[in-house]
Amino acid sequence: MAATTIGVFDSGFGGLTVLRELLPLIPGAHYIYLGDTARLPYGSKSQITIARYAVESARFLESQGADHLVIACNTASALAMTEIRDAVGIPVTGVIEPVVDAARHRHPHSDVLVLATSATVQSHAYRTQCGERGLRASEKACPLLVPLVEEGWVDSPITRDVIRVYLREALADCSPQAILLGCTHYPLIAPAIRAILNELNSQAEVIDSARATAIAIERAIHVPPTESAVPASFQCYATDSVEKFARLGSQFLGQPIPLVDLLDLGG
Amino acid sequence: MAATTIGVFDSGFGGLTVLRELLPLIPGAHYIYLGDTARLPYGSKSQITIARYAVESARFLESQGADHLVIACNTASALAMTEIRDAVGIPVTGVIEPVVDAARHRHPHSDVLVLATSATVQSHAYRTQCGERGLRASEKACPLLVPLVEEGWVDSPITRDVIRVYLREALADCSPQAILLGCTHYPLIAPAIRAILNELNSQAEVIDSARATAIAIERAIHVPPTESAVPASFQCYATDSVEKFARLGSQFLGQPIPLVDLLDLGG
Repeated sequence: MAATTIGVFDSGFGGLTVLRELLPLIPGAHYIYLGDTARLPYGSKSQITIARYAVESARFLESQGADHLVIACNTASALAMTEIRDAVGIPVTGVIEPVVDAARHRHPHSDVLVLATSATVQSHAYRTQCGERGLRASEKACPLLVPLVEEGWVDSPITRDVIRVYLREALADCSPQAILLGCTHYPLIAPAIRAILNELNSQAEVIDSARATAIAIERAIHVPPTESAVPASFQCYATDSVEKFARLGSQFLGQPIPLVDLLDLGG
Repeated sequence: MAATTIGVFDSGFGGLTVLRELLPLIPGAHYIYLGDTARLPYGSKSQITIARYAVESARFLESQGADHLVIACNTASALAMTEIRDAVGIPVTGVIEPVVDAARHRHPHSDVLVLATSATVQSHAYRTQCGERGLRASEKACPLLVPLVEEGWVDSPITRDVIRVYLREALADCSPQAILLGCTHYPLIAPAIRAILNELNSQAEVIDSARATAIAIERAIHVPPTESAVPASFQCYATDSVEKFARLGSQFLGQPIPLVDLLDLGG
């Protein structure tokens, strides 16, 4: 029997933090990761364009044999889940529902704070999904965090200064019991976020969407025990800048990416 | 006789710093600004794609009656000038040649330092053009400066900390007589850059590509004296996010942008 194949899609390489959590959790699977780097950032584009791009990527991953699809992109998870589910014949998991479910499970009926990019905050996808699950969500746009992570300044005092500014502003308006990291880049600075929360005397628990999504997929997929003995294998595609993808992506994945295949999905 | 019409093109709203310099310098003209915001950032795209996008924008501005075209985009100026000049029948000025010419004029045969985005540095367009004019150029990628300016943290101590890191790294390897601001966002933080240079005991003169480009166009265009009495008028188009364009663009232009027209140039 062939191994379970899990397709993971993001506009860039941020979604590799989700793959990083999946690899040890479902080790017997084969993973195909697609970063639509030619057309990022999705956040500044219209809903119709984002849905079209995401559907093209989802169909590619299905055509490559994916049995399950992970939309490891907050913008596409916020704005294109219906279109993606309509376009493919396999189960699809986004990154927003799992982390909101985890927050509800651990802190029911509480106040939560969502840290995300401007585009994700403007979609209010987290606030809506939190509201449907009895959580009161404040959303804070943190536009500098992605560039700081991509610059590699994960442990820099400047990054901590920026986090401090954002958290001070956000915590002036709310006292959350959980902080949801609503961007796949943020797991790399989760330790710095926890340190600043401690400094600001907040007891809020940081819940990471990459980890929460990987756990949700492990529960959804029943991998045969024979497969779990086989080491995970993965293959990466990017629609542009494969060299940058391999270099920066390795930091997100936590291991070297030996090969990235260039894929043309059109203009 | 109709007023001179100057078309100004950028991938986003950064090029508005060039328009800001042009308005008082050539007041009698009519300006049409096009920001291809749907397809930014150009920096992460291939040369063929950038040239195609830039040519479409250049043709649109010519079709709207532009007599002169300003490519107020460093990426397109670095990678697509030949294609743009071949595609239109009007004079075209980029942002790189004018600032390099200004540096050569003021500091001939000297060492210069170019601050720019990663994409511009990777193109080595500044180093090449400096070399052709007898200047030895070091190039320093400063990927965090655009997001800091777009966050509005122009006067923030964090922005000064980031500039200090970049300038310390760059000045460890060279002792420039001039510093070329190779990104249309950077004029907004030129005062902070000058302050940090002073702190680091550098005497280098900061030369601004927006100002240098506007002066080059004033020299190239002979505006009839009757026109210079008429106040300048401008019209803005963007291919996406017109509301963000108007809001953030006003800071770059230094005056309100009452109306931004949405333009569809295709996928």
